[in-house]
Amino acid sequence: MTRLAVGVDIGGTKVAAAVVTDDGTVVARATSPTPTQELGSGAVEDALVGVITELGAAHSVEAVGIGAAGLVADGRVLYCPHLPLRGEPVAQRVSQRVGLPVVLDNDANAAALGEARFGAAREAAVAVCVNLGTGIGGAVLAQGHLLRGANSLAGEFGHMTISPDGLPCECGRRGCWEQYASGRALERLVPGQRGAEITAAAGSGDVAAVSGLAEVGRWLGLGLANLVAAYDPDLIVVGGGVSDADVLLLDPARAALAQQLFASAWRPPVPVVRAVLGVDAGVVGAAALALGLG
Amino acid sequence: MTRLAVGVDIGGTKVAAAVVTDDGTVVARATSPTPTQELGSGAVEDALVGVITELGAAHSVEAVGIGAAGLVADGRVLYCPHLPLRGEPVAQRVSQRVGLPVVLDNDANAAALGEARFGAAREAAVAVCVNLGTGIGGAVLAQGHLLRGANSLAGEFGHMTISPDGLPCECGRRGCWEQYASGRALERLVPGQRGAEITAAAGSGDVAAVSGLAEVGRWLGLGLANLVAAYDPDLIVVGGGVSDADVLLLDPARAALAQQLFASAWRPPVPVVRAVLGVDAGVVGAAALALGLG
Repeated sequence: MTRLAVGVDIGGTKVAAAVVTDDGTVVARATSPTPTQELGSGAVEDALVGVITELGAAHSVEAVGIGAAGLVADGRVLYCPHLPLRGEPVAQRVSQRVGLPVVLDNDANAAALGEARFGAAREAAVAVCVNLGTGIGGAVLAQGHLLRGANSLAGEFGHMTISPDGLPCECGRRGCWEQYASGRALERLVPGQRGAEITAAAGSGDVAAVSGLAEVGRWLGLGLANLVAAYDPDLIVVGGGVSDADVLLLDPARAALAQQLFASAWRPPVPVVRAVLGVDAGVVGAAALALGLG
Repeated sequence: MTRLAVGVDIGGTKVAAAVVTDDGTVVARATSPTPTQELGSGAVEDALVGVITELGAAHSVEAVGIGAAGLVADGRVLYCPHLPLRGEPVAQRVSQRVGLPVVLDNDANAAALGEARFGAAREAAVAVCVNLGTGIGGAVLAQGHLLRGANSLAGEFGHMTISPDGLPCECGRRGCWEQYASGRALERLVPGQRGAEITAAAGSGDVAAVSGLAEVGRWLGLGLANLVAAYDPDLIVVGGGVSDADVLLLDPARAALAQQLFASAWRPPVPVVRAVLGVDAGVVGAAALALGLG
């Protein structure tokens, strides 16, 4: 019998939700604007309850999974610069209001799990997953299971220092990888346009846009080489909005990875592939978490 | 009933072996010089068989574990600049000659496992282990088990790029962490002395030696901050010869880690401790592997 869960992805501009089956199929959707910082955590909870209730009224769902950018542990968003959540027990509060079990996780964890169960990483022994959005979200799957760390804070690859004394980062430090390989980095390299516009322009042959994506790709590959040295994956999955640029981003990344890969003579090449679930990765993965497929 | 195994640590200058109990106690030892490059892999196998046979004659051992620096997979040392081993099936050949099961692993994996079962990492949920010798050996334990990667090549932290366009590395790339935080780095910073001499001089208050260790410690902490962002450990264990400098190395490392730690406000501090098994970590850990305690 097919089991159903609601998966929710809290983004900077919208709360996207979907009813998802246990084989990863989206059968219904609902969205709501993400409340602004001023409205506070209660407004975020109201938005979550709204989309969950709407979907739950028409489908027999057994649980809810929520993915959110930022540091997530114990059902709370500890820190996220783009959301008005500061440690409140969101999972518990929403669970009480909707009458369903609710799990809350980092959005990159959710997306990686979606790819592991239903997407690009189904066959991988060890998959390193990075999501290039405004910053870099990261997760690692070993034998299909997320490596969460001691405090559920693993996979914060975007804040690995790749250039000491490099560019300042919002985290207060310098030279973080996400300052060089992310949507924000792309927008800095090609000023005056948003990431999606740059990708579109690059697709039309705009030289500055192509060059910007290649530079982001080069830094992406350099950082990925570090992650290969550490984790020894047999697959790298790149998702997030910047990955829409496909080969314009990934080919320069693959070239840099090949050049920078430690011990390349003694290991198989590591494929770098695009995430296949696209914008649905977050809701599908969150639903998989809710269904105990983590 | 106490079970016994022979643990062997193939170092650059000597092959150290010990009979080790299943609670990590060393009950007998044997050593042999490490054959030079010119003598080839057969001489290494002869040396291994020699120490194993010597110890096995006096103790009822059930298996043999061997740790070697370098890239190790499938019972072979794929690559190690300091040993005359180039992919030969060492474990299989030695096993046939001594009539015992033989496992071969990376020396940092063996040392980390020793610390996990009998040493500093017994209580850790996720332990990042680094061994500062000539270079950096690395391993990660999650719930007491080594994260080996898809090709058994995980944990090569020494070859993570920490400074693009930085110092050249023996691996052919630039800016590898081990060029900044290792015995070799220390000897470059304090020219004319070997690592152990520098540590001894620092203990006597030699300003240049203290300063060199502090600089190595600073880079050690910077790289450890990257590993914390990636793995979210609750413990960092530092072993290897350079760790004999203790606080002269580790206090600067702890300070740099605290300064560079991402999300430090939202996680417990990560203790940085010295490995407790010292020079025995390799043989004890290799024996633990042989006894199936991995």
